[in-house]
Amino acid sequence: METGKQPILFTIFGGTGDLTYRKLLPALYNLMAVKVFPEQVKVLVIGRKSFNNESYIEQIKPWVKKHARLAFSDNVFNQLAEHISYIQMNFTEQEDYQKLFDIYSKYKQAQQLYYYAVAPEFFSVISNHLMACGCLVENHSHQVLIEKPFGHDEASANELHTQMLDVFSDKSIYRIDHYLGKEMIQNIMAIRFKNMLFQHVWNKEAIDYIAITASETVGVEERGGYYDQTGAIKDMVQNHLFQILSIVLMEQPVDDQVETMFKSQSDIINSLVLLDKDNVLDHVVLGQYDAGSVDDENVVAYIDENKVAKDSKTETFAALKVYVDHPLYKGLPIYLQTGKRLDTRSTEVLVVFKSVNNQKPNVLTIRISPDEGVYLTFNAKKPGNTQDVNVVSMDFCQSCVYENRVNTPEAYERLLFAAFNKDKALFTDWSMVQSSWKYIDHLFKVIKEANVPVHRYKAGSFGPLQVSDLLPKSYFHYRTK
Amino acid sequence: METGKQPILFTIFGGTGDLTYRKLLPALYNLMAVKVFPEQVKVLVIGRKSFNNESYIEQIKPWVKKHARLAFSDNVFNQLAEHISYIQMNFTEQEDYQKLFDIYSKYKQAQQLYYYAVAPEFFSVISNHLMACGCLVENHSHQVLIEKPFGHDEASANELHTQMLDVFSDKSIYRIDHYLGKEMIQNIMAIRFKNMLFQHVWNKEAIDYIAITASETVGVEERGGYYDQTGAIKDMVQNHLFQILSIVLMEQPVDDQVETMFKSQSDIINSLVLLDKDNVLDHVVLGQYDAGSVDDENVVAYIDENKVAKDSKTETFAALKVYVDHPLYKGLPIYLQTGKRLDTRSTEVLVVFKSVNNQKPNVLTIRISPDEGVYLTFNAKKPGNTQDVNVVSMDFCQSCVYENRVNTPEAYERLLFAAFNKDKALFTDWSMVQSSWKYIDHLFKVIKEANVPVHRYKAGSFGPLQVSDLLPKSYFHYRTK
Repeated sequence: METGKQPILFTIFGGTGDLTYRKLLPALYNLMAVKVFPEQVKVLVIGRKSFNNESYIEQIKPWVKKHARLAFSDNVFNQLAEHISYIQMNFTEQEDYQKLFDIYSKYKQAQQLYYYAVAPEFFSVISNHLMACGCLVENHSHQVLIEKPFGHDEASANELHTQMLDVFSDKSIYRIDHYLGKEMIQNIMAIRFKNMLFQHVWNKEAIDYIAITASETVGVEERGGYYDQTGAIKDMVQNHLFQILSIVLMEQPVDDQVETMFKSQSDIINSLVLLDKDNVLDHVVLGQYDAGSVDDENVVAYIDENKVAKDSKTETFAALKVYVDHPLYKGLPIYLQTGKRLDTRSTEVLVVFKSVNNQKPNVLTIRISPDEGVYLTFNAKKPGNTQDVNVVSMDFCQSCVYENRVNTPEAYERLLFAAFNKDKALFTDWSMVQSSWKYIDHLFKVIKEANVPVHRYKAGSFGPLQVSDLLPKSYFHYRTK
Repeated sequence: METGKQPILFTIFGGTGDLTYRKLLPALYNLMAVKVFPEQVKVLVIGRKSFNNESYIEQIKPWVKKHARLAFSDNVFNQLAEHISYIQMNFTEQEDYQKLFDIYSKYKQAQQLYYYAVAPEFFSVISNHLMACGCLVENHSHQVLIEKPFGHDEASANELHTQMLDVFSDKSIYRIDHYLGKEMIQNIMAIRFKNMLFQHVWNKEAIDYIAITASETVGVEERGGYYDQTGAIKDMVQNHLFQILSIVLMEQPVDDQVETMFKSQSDIINSLVLLDKDNVLDHVVLGQYDAGSVDDENVVAYIDENKVAKDSKTETFAALKVYVDHPLYKGLPIYLQTGKRLDTRSTEVLVVFKSVNNQKPNVLTIRISPDEGVYLTFNAKKPGNTQDVNVVSMDFCQSCVYENRVNTPEAYERLLFAAFNKDKALFTDWSMVQSSWKYIDHLFKVIKEANVPVHRYKAGSFGPLQVSDLLPKSYFHYRTK
């Protein structure tokens, strides 16, 4: 895919932060290495720290070396470096924006990308300063990229959104959910909509249950302060798992307009059946990790993590059994599960079909990370003088598991590439943000009303014991380890 | 699977013939080698030639060595030899049956198996002599195994059947179609009836077409005399291809009675839409091989084969496009194709599903021989920054292709094992024979009326050129070579 010849000004606010070092610059390096870096792009990195271009390039080199998926080459890195300018300024100070204005003035026809790699409270600060400095030209071709959290409930998300709309049109806002940049998430649509085999069985008549799982072995790492205010449901379910859920269940968009797809997706989230205080205890299991051992290493309890309250009741694990009020899926149980400090690191979707003639069911597994692949089990006769049936499994490309690690772009690489190309399909639409918060706000309300307990679970285990009452027995069998 | 303790007397008429040497004795050897040879079985081999037990065992040793699928072991062979007795007699002479009577008298409680490894014209001769000698005890537990051809049209098949019924009940008659002994034929039922994925798509809404192909690279070999009176349709389509067709399309039997399965199968053959003289030219292509080259070897034309008439119009190739008048499959084209001296040796079933969104279709391939396996193609997104779709393929067990050659029984081994266990499911029911002949008799009538030509094709080619007008273009693409 070729990008056009229009120059691109890519301004990163927060240019000396973790996100820029670990994700954005390595992603740009990868795009350069695979030769899809747009020729006319200029990367303006903004930070308060005292660097010049040269010292900034030296500063980022080890980060790129460490975090780029492709082998480091000085040649490629130097090519990238030529596109990067470091601008020392304080993005909270209006006068500092003169520097930006001067540069932007030289590229009046450029496609402008602003990446807010900063905390959400600064979004409106930057937007307003950009506006005030005259940097935003009316009808200018611009895009603004922002990262979650998009609020912590519907009201705060609305507020943030309204602030963004003061300056940008909704069309210009690119909300990043890095899960949407993952190869296999995009593949779910191809599998669902381009194969007669799956089209006919994607409904409650043929499917027994669906389970979407994102389990982590890490704890809260350096994010204890933020995480303790957030928890697993807001950190993972409201955004990533709901995104996956919406793609797994959405009706096939009738055209290839991105708005049509967003509508299909948010329809699913809007059709989630709300829990109430009488049934929430049977549909939700919450947990918080205790001390334990992960990968043979002793780890502390959540409440002993840095910046976490000693009496914290924040959930680091959540399992939900949900239903959607949709003719195709009514009554079909869908399990969403996520947690930190679990026994395995993997994100995957299990589609467990109904059993036929008391045989083991067909199971379609879409592995999203760390391995990527599609696996399908089915029943065949055992070889030999027998009518016994065996479960055999197919995977569509064993070698892809390995090839992909080299050949497929990482999430940020894919997302930046999409942004350069103004492809919004890989970003989160406002309708999804709003629908998700509506459901989650209500969920927390009934969790509080019913006093849903937060069970302790041992770090390195599969989660709180109580989850085995929520999930079907077969889940533990089909789950890929 | 264990056979009971009742002694089995297994009498082979035609004990010095090709079938016995090449198939039956090697199959018995294999059963012995894999330790499922029933303990109490006595094999009585009948021939006119002058052998005693010892010299007969010497005679068959090299045949077993050559034709058994398992490595030859003197130990196993000697174990088998202990079960074999050679009886020199002329099975057309009533008085010779006294020898049999004397032996049978010693095993009054035995399960009796008669294998007629002789030409069909001798079936009634043997049956009547067996009856007359008092060898067949009323209510005796007996079975008679016969080989195709079961007649050459409906009338002759009926006559043969009536003769058999003079002596045996229909329940006792085991008609061998060695295709039914093949591993993957049995697997078709497991795949169809034990997987939700395939259950929902096994109909005209989801399937574009079905193609059943049995192609051979050999010519008529030593069978020129017989073959020239028979041709490809009667030699292959009426029996083997119709058997496969019936299993591919039959409704799931409502119980596990073998009669229920036979009914399901013959219902399909009975529902085949008859061709007429106006449309037969568009639905049938016939061919006869000319001289050519197969596997880099020059081979003669069919008419130059031994015992073939120089002006023969017998077809050595047939391709049929047929429909069944069945609610699930109405209007779904089914292609049956077979031929000798073609470019490839393989028997397989292709189920080509309908295309979705202009993508390549899902294709389920069931390879019956020489390789055994199930293959499925489907569409997935190409890895990388693209929404392009790739066709990827799954096979349920690559290694099985190799393992099966060692681990899975050969057809005759499976069929003899089934006969010892009185399992009729692997044999052809009379209803299938009769339904098939009804269709084939009518087919030949309209072939004659419409004067369907027999096209020449070069040995080693894919058949007559005209077949490319009959078959869908994609067939040539999906066909496994």
